[in-house]
Amino acid sequence: MSNYAAIQTYAFQSAASIIAGRHSITTLRDRLQMMGEIRSALLVTGSAMESLGVVDELTLQLNSAGISLQVLKGVVQEPTIGNIEQLFSSIAGEHFDALIGLGGGSILDAAKILSVMKTNEKPLREMLGTDLIPRRGVPLVLIPTTSGTGSEVTPNAIVTLPEEELKVGIISRYLLPQLAILDPMLTLQLPKQITAATGMDAFTHAFESFISNKANPISDMFAMESIRRISRSIVEAYQDGGSIEARENMLLGSMYGGMALTGAGTAAVHALAYPLGGKFHIPHGVANSMLLPHVTEFNLDAISNRLTNVAQAMGFRHDVSMTASQAADFVLTRISEWIKELQIPQNLAEYGVTEADVEALAQAASKVTRLLNNNPKAMSLDHIQDVYKKLLPK
Amino acid sequence: MSNYAAIQTYAFQSAASIIAGRHSITTLRDRLQMMGEIRSALLVTGSAMESLGVVDELTLQLNSAGISLQVLKGVVQEPTIGNIEQLFSSIAGEHFDALIGLGGGSILDAAKILSVMKTNEKPLREMLGTDLIPRRGVPLVLIPTTSGTGSEVTPNAIVTLPEEELKVGIISRYLLPQLAILDPMLTLQLPKQITAATGMDAFTHAFESFISNKANPISDMFAMESIRRISRSIVEAYQDGGSIEARENMLLGSMYGGMALTGAGTAAVHALAYPLGGKFHIPHGVANSMLLPHVTEFNLDAISNRLTNVAQAMGFRHDVSMTASQAADFVLTRISEWIKELQIPQNLAEYGVTEADVEALAQAASKVTRLLNNNPKAMSLDHIQDVYKKLLPK
Ligand SMILES: NC(=O)c1ccc[n+]([C@@H]2O[C@H](COP(=O)([O-])OP(=O)(O)OC[C@H]3O[C@@H](n4cnc5c(N)ncnc54)[C@H](O)[C@@H]3O)[C@@H](O)[C@H]2O)c1
Ligand SMILES: NC(=O)c1ccc[n+]([C@@H]2O[C@H](COP(=O)([O-])OP(=O)(O)OC[C@H]3O[C@@H](n4cnc5c(N)ncnc54)[C@H](O)[C@@H]3O)[C@@H](O)[C@H]2O)c1
Ligand SMILES: [Fe+2]
Ligand SMILES: [Fe+2]
Repeated sequence: MSNYAAIQTYAFQSAASIIAGRHSITTLRDRLQMMGEIRSALLVTGSAMESLGVVDELTLQLNSAGISLQVLKGVVQEPTIGNIEQLFSSIAGEHFDALIGLGGGSILDAAKILSVMKTNEKPLREMLGTDLIPRRGVPLVLIPTTSGTGSEVTPNAIVTLPEEELKVGIISRYLLPQLAILDPMLTLQLPKQITAATGMDAFTHAFESFISNKANPISDMFAMESIRRISRSIVEAYQDGGSIEARENMLLGSMYGGMALTGAGTAAVHALAYPLGGKFHIPHGVANSMLLPHVTEFNLDAISNRLTNVAQAMGFRHDVSMTASQAADFVLTRISEWIKELQIPQNLAEYGVTEADVEALAQAASKVTRLLNNNPKAMSLDHIQDVYKKLLPK
Repeated sequence: MSNYAAIQTYAFQSAASIIAGRHSITTLRDRLQMMGEIRSALLVTGSAMESLGVVDELTLQLNSAGISLQVLKGVVQEPTIGNIEQLFSSIAGEHFDALIGLGGGSILDAAKILSVMKTNEKPLREMLGTDLIPRRGVPLVLIPTTSGTGSEVTPNAIVTLPEEELKVGIISRYLLPQLAILDPMLTLQLPKQITAATGMDAFTHAFESFISNKANPISDMFAMESIRRISRSIVEAYQDGGSIEARENMLLGSMYGGMALTGAGTAAVHALAYPLGGKFHIPHGVANSMLLPHVTEFNLDAISNRLTNVAQAMGFRHDVSMTASQAADFVLTRISEWIKELQIPQNLAEYGVTEADVEALAQAASKVTRLLNNNPKAMSLDHIQDVYKKLLPK
């Protein structure tokens, strides 16, 4: 046995700086000024923030400090490579001292990628995978407006490859922003369905990180805190979108989910979700929510020692002792209750999936080894097919 | 009421990257190479790490990657301005691509300061205070060998001003390292007394952050996790220094304490400790431990709503409900038990303090408004004197 067998290291990295809290977006100008000589910035955003007036507000705010702001729209939902390449060519000739991403995970991921495309000659296709970006990008500020991906604090960006009908990850420390701003006020108008799907995505990040083979003391802390906040507030945020407290909990919960997955990675739920997004355009959070109960049932015997903590974080009564099987019941029941209360579909047929698609889906999912390797229990092609089939009830 | 009355923001920042776990120091070379063109580094360290052979090990490790390593010793315990200025002049003519601090808080703080002195013309004296460092420093790696200050993840450095008989803080984002490495194996030989004092310092960071006026949802998470880990392991780390698990808990606990105080700040315990360090050279952790019970008694009515959480994190039985006064009792009793078990002095006279010194100490402490402002209850000069007097039993 080599010396190194005893080495058990784990890593953590995040946004260089985080500002959170109500109306924290009003600090953007001052923060940009602290980042250095910033005279021009590109704001990558979408119509939701435009119609809320946030884009106008930011323009005024930054202009008053002598910073010119150009707005770039046109990121499609769960962006494809082609979409990002096209956006890039529309700004290729221009110089910006900073890039600001303001939107859901789709927009944040696009902004992250544009930032490194600006400073690297390498074609985007050759950046897919881990640590394949040579140089740091344009200084980046990320401002999430969904409470889901945690992308504002992760070194990841996800793109869709339409030809391959797959979603793939780009992982590089150069995708981490200088600054993340978490302002719950921006999420008050998030529609119910998106609140539900993105909230369940965030929960899945925390849950999968906690049971991941790469789970460690740092990722565990973030996962637990994420599960605590989301469990406390996901139903309230859905039912009463104007509850600032619930929205703030969801936003912090999704950030902590991102911090957890940075260290521990997600696992089989995400691996099986990617082909559903790539081929059938099922929104990422919906795909995760559909898969979560069934993948968890599959994993159950391998994770029972972890579920006591999860159950506690999800609100299992403190003053009652709990067996492993009670914990598992509690967790699975609570997840199903959420899925009902949040009206998340549980039938892939609604998205046009048929039994005939299952084999190809499973083939595609089985290739997402980066995530399947994190799963506490090995999943064969058959296992994967079984899970998809459960979502095609006769 | 202005618009801005509704703004409630809170911030967080930390080391750009963290590697933790047993033998994680063996990853230094690879990590340095990821940081860019690093050909030469300065290692700021002390005799403890030298006699353990760590300095030789690192020299071999880095040389094998073509990185030359120069060693700088001579940081005194709780370094004075003069000590750091002198060390700086001994390396002023030389160029280093990176600085590595390997030691307790004294050495880490010195390395942080040397890193920014290298790139700023400004005299050190003019950097004392908040945000007074113009430019980022030489890339910095911090490797703690005590489990106390959390300095490896904070934007703070503390120096002693011998003439003023005070300790003061330098706070700047440029004091944050590129990388922190938390290897519990480096702390196994930490002497009992230092284990006790530095461990109580770490606990005090978490505790004071949690009750600070600036406490917020992010700092609270770190404070709670810090209190959990330290409460579980401080006595074991003291009694059985070779317990890797206890040492790892203490090291993570002190890092989380640093993360908590970055957002929330410490409070009156630290304010009152500084003059004890500046004037009587009482080690920082010892001064904090002595003050903690008495300042907490003073704060009690202002913090009772916070102590239920603290008591739970300190191990109050989960299955029993708890009143506010039970929580307070539990916390205070547990702290006194630790002080006894860890054999921490509780009499300032042992350090040469007399009743005649109390007024000047209180005067000096009352000037540490940066920290006193965080205290949940205002402390008058009389209140401060009362606390010092409790530590001078007749
Ligand atoms: N980088 C990462 O770490 C990471 C992690 C998980 C998922 N992802 C990726 O992120 C993408 C999904 O992001 P998402 O779930 O945040 O959804 P999204 O960004 O695709 O947004 C969903 C919808 O919500 C709308 N919207 C966003 N904010 C709004 C607001 N405040 N008010 C009203 N409408 C608003 C958008 O316009 C869009 O129509 C996927 O591509 C997924 O793969 C990335
Ligand atoms: N920057 C911050 O955020 C921050 C926070 C709190 C305190 N501080 C400052 O840090 C300083 C105190 O640092 P500290 O408490 O870590 O103590 P220290 O660095 O002064 O070290 C105390 C003693 O322990 C020895 N030692 C250190 N590591 C050892 C090991 N692994 N094995 C054997 N001996 C070892 C040292 O040689 C020294 O004699 C004070 O100046 C304090 O004000 C800074
Ligand atoms: Fe996700
Ligand atoms: Fe301290």
